Amino acid sequence: MSLIVKKFGGSSVANAERVFNVANIIADEYRNGNDVIVVVSAQGDTTDDLIEKAKEINPKGGSKRELDMLLTAGEQISIALLSMAIETLGCPVISLLGWQAGFNTDSHHGVARIKSINTERMRSELSKGNIIIVAGFQGINKYDDITTLGRGGSDTSAVAIAASMKADRCQIYTDVDGVYTADPRKVKNPQKLEEITYDEMLELATLGAQVLNNRSVEMAKKYNVKLEVLSSLERKPGTIVKETVKMEKTLIKGVAKDTVTRISVIGLKDTPGIAFKLFNALSQHKINVDIILQSVGRDATKDITFTVAQAQCDDALEAIKSLEDGLEYKEISYSNDTAKVSVVGAGMESHPGVASKMFEALYDAGINIQMISTSEIKISVLIDAKYADKAVEVVHNAFIG
Amino acid sequence: MSLIVKKFGGSSVANAERVFNVANIIADEYRNGNDVIVVVSAQGDTTDDLIEKAKEINPKGGSKRELDMLLTAGEQISIALLSMAIETLGCPVISLLGWQAGFNTDSHHGVARIKSINTERMRSELSKGNIIIVAGFQGINKYDDITTLGRGGSDTSAVAIAASMKADRCQIYTDVDGVYTADPRKVKNPQKLEEITYDEMLELATLGAQVLNNRSVEMAKKYNVKLEVLSSLERKPGTIVKETVKMEKTLIKGVAKDTVTRISVIGLKDTPGIAFKLFNALSQHKINVDIILQSVGRDATKDITFTVAQAQCDDALEAIKSLEDGLEYKEISYSNDTAKVSVVGAGMESHPGVASKMFEALYDAGINIQMISTSEIKISVLIDAKYADKAVEVVHNAFIG
Repeated sequence: MSLIVKKFGGSSVANAERVFNVANIIADEYRNGNDVIVVVSAQGDTTDDLIEKAKEINPKGGSKRELDMLLTAGEQISIALLSMAIETLGCPVISLLGWQAGFNTDSHHGVARIKSINTERMRSELSKGNIIIVAGFQGINKYDDITTLGRGGSDTSAVAIAASMKADRCQIYTDVDGVYTADPRKVKNPQKLEEITYDEMLELATLGAQVLNNRSVEMAKKYNVKLEVLSSLERKPGTIVKETVKMEKTLIKGVAKDTVTRISVIGLKDTPGIAFKLFNALSQHKINVDIILQSVGRDATKDITFTVAQAQCDDALEAIKSLEDGLEYKEISYSNDTAKVSVVGAGMESHPGVASKMFEALYDAGINIQMISTSEIKISVLIDAKYADKAVEVVHNAFIG
Repeated sequence: MSLIVKKFGGSSVANAERVFNVANIIADEYRNGNDVIVVVSAQGDTTDDLIEKAKEINPKGGSKRELDMLLTAGEQISIALLSMAIETLGCPVISLLGWQAGFNTDSHHGVARIKSINTERMRSELSKGNIIIVAGFQGINKYDDITTLGRGGSDTSAVAIAASMKADRCQIYTDVDGVYTADPRKVKNPQKLEEITYDEMLELATLGAQVLNNRSVEMAKKYNVKLEVLSSLERKPGTIVKETVKMEKTLIKGVAKDTVTRISVIGLKDTPGIAFKLFNALSQHKINVDIILQSVGRDATKDITFTVAQAQCDDALEAIKSLEDGLEYKEISYSNDTAKVSVVGAGMESHPGVASKMFEALYDAGINIQMISTSEIKISVLIDAKYADKAVEVVHNAFIG
């Protein structure tokens, strides 16, 4: 007997028919003799509808505490309906809200972090033979106020339960049947991966592959939770995410793209501590900097270029300009028309040919590379955003297609 | 400074405009220097929509525990939205779910009774200067499972808070501006009452006047909570419900009607214990019997006639027929086309003319009386249901019109 944690997103339970589809997957797992804990998101557009209601009241958005109170009603509805569907299939089941399942978080409404999970109630329900349906995305702070975990929160809920309950597997059900070497909607014949490492998955998630939420992969890696990404519509194996994987035919696990903002601070005075001042200011403004490139400028100056998420562009510019003790520079330039295209693969560091193969493919397609950044398992290039899809295609074809 | 508890029903917060109307009433009370705790129901049709969703999953209805989980999401949405509206008016406010407000109930999902209210959180929020918005209709049992209080539950929530917090007044906002001597939609020129006693209000509620839920009036009487029924649409005084009221011009506080099922058990063997057996069986089947009339039948038999709510007709017939140790009777007859019309007024017992005046009015209108029942503050007659509205009108005119 195994303990399996399953997570279903909002589109998987969008209507009664889909709720029953999910209920059958769960009931089958239970009938196979396994303990099952399920995390589910709010149905289909429920969250958006609730946000719309809030905006009718206050176009600027209400307080984050009240927004959390509002939004968590969405998962409450879906756990009740899914439990009712499982009841009709004759399996014992109980739904639990985040706080009932023991999710204790900090008090950062809207982006709360899980501090601990009190597993007592879940263990008790499993021992009674119940399937457990847990409301994803939500918890409670030390004041007994409802909190939400932010974007991708239900994935995080599922992995956190799998970690704290020492589950044998944590299955994340989506509308694709696994992790592919590139976005199937953009590239012909991408390959589905049987297995991928946490680090590779993290790079792909960071790079915009959008299969799994980053925080959940980080947590899975930290607690060594065996993840599986699979389809809620087809009954077939998905992609396993774990610490080490067996050698596969392909060295490259994926090609991904993301649009970013590139910011250049040009003509910085070349004295020690300049980079520290700059990135410390950005850090204090909670801005996540991705690629950093420093180059020698003219007349004893230097240029620093870095990328941030497009949503943080204004904040980043503000942070630099607000540096009070005078960061001396000539000018700041930025571009939102920039895409980052990356190849990811764990064995890459020992294969120097990967980088040149990637650059050659881009060169052959006439795509100019603006910046290059490499890590042990990733090579990223910045290019003009309008060539992003083309770049993914030619790079994918070079390695995999 | 007073502590005022206010309750608003679902239609009072059905859309953003109405939410702001309610928010303004609350903000004005707060700005007048009062502490304010508000109980609110689910918006408009939310509860019906959620029940519809449940029926799509299971037409017979899911388990009551999961139904409570589902339905309580409705109040969660309305408290968040109302709090956001009050925030925009610049008043400090916090929303609390039933369990956060300290509502402990028994475990009868769907019809739970309040066992206690832990007022610690509410007191703490008031001391911080916050307006408190509480989700009505809901609580939590000793297993930390969400429960609901059943029909009219939000009224009960409000009175329970007023009782436990020793509020100066509990205001129940509705779409009428007070308690009238008859239904304004059915009778010309009914009079609005300034004051009414708990007992009179209870009789009116029981008789189908539907202004206040019975349980809430019972609780208000028990804990001596001063109730006020008033309109959420007009700013004017409503009707006060309290222990004793000053003498008013009218002796009669109201004329009300209700449709009932009349069941007659005819030709019962006239031995001791017959009535006990019959009503004990009904009681064990949780059937509320209203009027009882026993009459002498023929050939040493007797007839017992009683009324029950129409919804319990089948259960009542079943209960009688299932009496195993043989209740000997000739036949059972029943009628669903029966209406109960009643006059209510506390001074009635010392005014013997009331009954004859009522009977005369019905006689003049050609309405036949099937049964009569009297109490200290009420005279009820059973008549053919098709004359119900006419009967209310002529009786009302005789006393008040």
